[in-house]
Amino acid sequence: MRELVEQAKRFNVPLVASAKPEDAGALRAALPPGTRVESGAAGLLAVAVESAADVVVAATDGAVAFDAVFAAVERGIRIAVANKELIVAAGELFVRAAAVSGAEIVPVDSEHSALFQCLVGEPRERIASLILTASGGPFWTWDREAIERASLEDALRHPTWQMGPKNTVDSASLMNKGLEVIEASRLFGIGADRIDVLVHRTSVAHGFVVFTDGNVKAQLAPPDMRLPIGYALAYPDRLPDHDRIDPLAALGAAAGAAGADLSFARPDVARFPCLGLAYEALRRGGTVPAALSAANEIAVAAFVRGAIRFGAIPGVVAAAVAGTPDEELSLASVRAADLRARDLAREAVEARLATPAN
Amino acid sequence: MRELVEQAKRFNVPLVASAKPEDAGALRAALPPGTRVESGAAGLLAVAVESAADVVVAATDGAVAFDAVFAAVERGIRIAVANKELIVAAGELFVRAAAVSGAEIVPVDSEHSALFQCLVGEPRERIASLILTASGGPFWTWDREAIERASLEDALRHPTWQMGPKNTVDSASLMNKGLEVIEASRLFGIGADRIDVLVHRTSVAHGFVVFTDGNVKAQLAPPDMRLPIGYALAYPDRLPDHDRIDPLAALGAAAGAAGADLSFARPDVARFPCLGLAYEALRRGGTVPAALSAANEIAVAAFVRGAIRFGAIPGVVAAAVAGTPDEELSLASVRAADLRARDLAREAVEARLATPAN
Repeated sequence: MRELVEQAKRFNVPLVASAKPEDAGALRAALPPGTRVESGAAGLLAVAVESAADVVVAATDGAVAFDAVFAAVERGIRIAVANKELIVAAGELFVRAAAVSGAEIVPVDSEHSALFQCLVGEPRERIASLILTASGGPFWTWDREAIERASLEDALRHPTWQMGPKNTVDSASLMNKGLEVIEASRLFGIGADRIDVLVHRTSVAHGFVVFTDGNVKAQLAPPDMRLPIGYALAYPDRLPDHDRIDPLAALGAAAGAAGADLSFARPDVARFPCLGLAYEALRRGGTVPAALSAANEIAVAAFVRGAIRFGAIPGVVAAAVAGTPDEELSLASVRAADLRARDLAREAVEARLATPAN
Repeated sequence: MRELVEQAKRFNVPLVASAKPEDAGALRAALPPGTRVESGAAGLLAVAVESAADVVVAATDGAVAFDAVFAAVERGIRIAVANKELIVAAGELFVRAAAVSGAEIVPVDSEHSALFQCLVGEPRERIASLILTASGGPFWTWDREAIERASLEDALRHPTWQMGPKNTVDSASLMNKGLEVIEASRLFGIGADRIDVLVHRTSVAHGFVVFTDGNVKAQLAPPDMRLPIGYALAYPDRLPDHDRIDPLAALGAAAGAAGADLSFARPDVARFPCLGLAYEALRRGGTVPAALSAANEIAVAAFVRGAIRFGAIPGVVAAAVAGTPDEELSLASVRAADLRARDLAREAVEARLATPAN
């Protein structure tokens, strides 16, 4: 909140909102009297549609920004999306609304920014497949039993990216990559059987587009979120910050290195069942991806507070997904599916708490 | 010539020309009486400008197609250029004429096709640098003395590409890459100090564009000239041939492989002085690149017929470049520089023939 106040003062921002209703009082106290302060989902909605913004960056957790982002899309405002749950749960609704209003949806996730950059100026109907890279997380070299018994400390040791605990645990289970497969499918209109994942430990190449003519385009960048954020803000231009970059450094080598090596391998769904669950949810479609994402939030939170072991996450998610019917996607059905999946996941966590093997 | 006759018959082509005047009689005899047959530079000119072509593919050796291609550019016809000497010698003139007429110049060389593909839809003023990859040729692991004494047979063992002897010898000396650096500079308007070469033995990644925002785009493809040719013909669309490609195969791995590795290293100008000569020619500009290219043709021909050793090629080229004055580029000056450089290179070959060390 300190940075929000600083930036609002520095740029003389007329309207400020926090997703958390409890922050409103402190914000009002800290900001000049002329600054309008709102909060909660209604506050985000006010910021998104009343600010005459050129770009709305959707970077909140979870579903609180749903209405705000949807309203901005309907008004044709460009959306820079960092909230992958939003696209996983209701991407088809956003993309459909954007097609009507002309809003551009520019992804901020590094992998989707990579694919988006590779697709600039290209005929979308000539995509043969999309490849997302995955670091593989801290357990890529571990065997199945060791992964199942992994501690929270183990799961938080991400090899390349610095992120919050939810995203870091999702990276360890590869659920993060599964959610990104669903996100890519929604953003680029490509089916599950045309989206591949390759494990690339150094996180230099973020995504590849394979075209129907046999050519492949890739995007590479250091693992630094400022790059995809800057791209989403400057698109279709690019920021002019760098004049010259050493060619090997641009390919991920340390300064002064004599060479750079990039390696890629197939992921292993047997050791990382969350990735398979995500593909299954994408194939079923409807509200199932929303249920997957919501159940995963509950399962990860239970693991983080020590209620279940790491190896129980896929089972909790699978139980919630199994309890989700095939139904058409709508604003109402996706909200209902989210709540139902959370309940089902909580029940599955409780059931595990009641058994000695956890 | 057999294939030319077959294709002319199959597609009922009204006008056929061969660059070689001596082929005209045989072509007339082999083709139906209604087919007009021309030959030589004038014949190519007739085909380029009288055929109402959408695309003119410039794939001849040397300078014979110069007038034909230039005339097509002036008429705003898209040029697919496979003749790199044309762009090295007079690229600035072509690019200037294309800017006036609106002609698109689409490169067919795999490295330049890669860069062109990476630049589709991108702001050209945000290029920080271009990276061309080089296979390194057959002598990449050899020491300097062994390279200097290399036989023709050694030089013709290219690790990845199947090409004619001139191009294969140029790949062994890295002059091929030097000419491509000049070609890239002309095609994309980027100076010598912003074009890098990296040795990439498997020739899967062909080029990288480093942007000023720190993002990098790359193009990858199997080493098969049908891909850049197909791209140049279909641009801005892409051919629809492939439905699905295995992700690791797309990154150059053999079918069924568990992983793909791509490695990149700095080239070594001490062992491959032709690369340094090309950068020097590009920095001097004017007619010097034309002189470099012309002198190299003479030097390579002398090596191929056994008149000089491999290690003498850079010296012959350097002698011709040293004898080329700094002068402004024009249609007249570039022709004169080409002829003068050939004479200077022949003199340098003669001088070496007269000495025992060759």
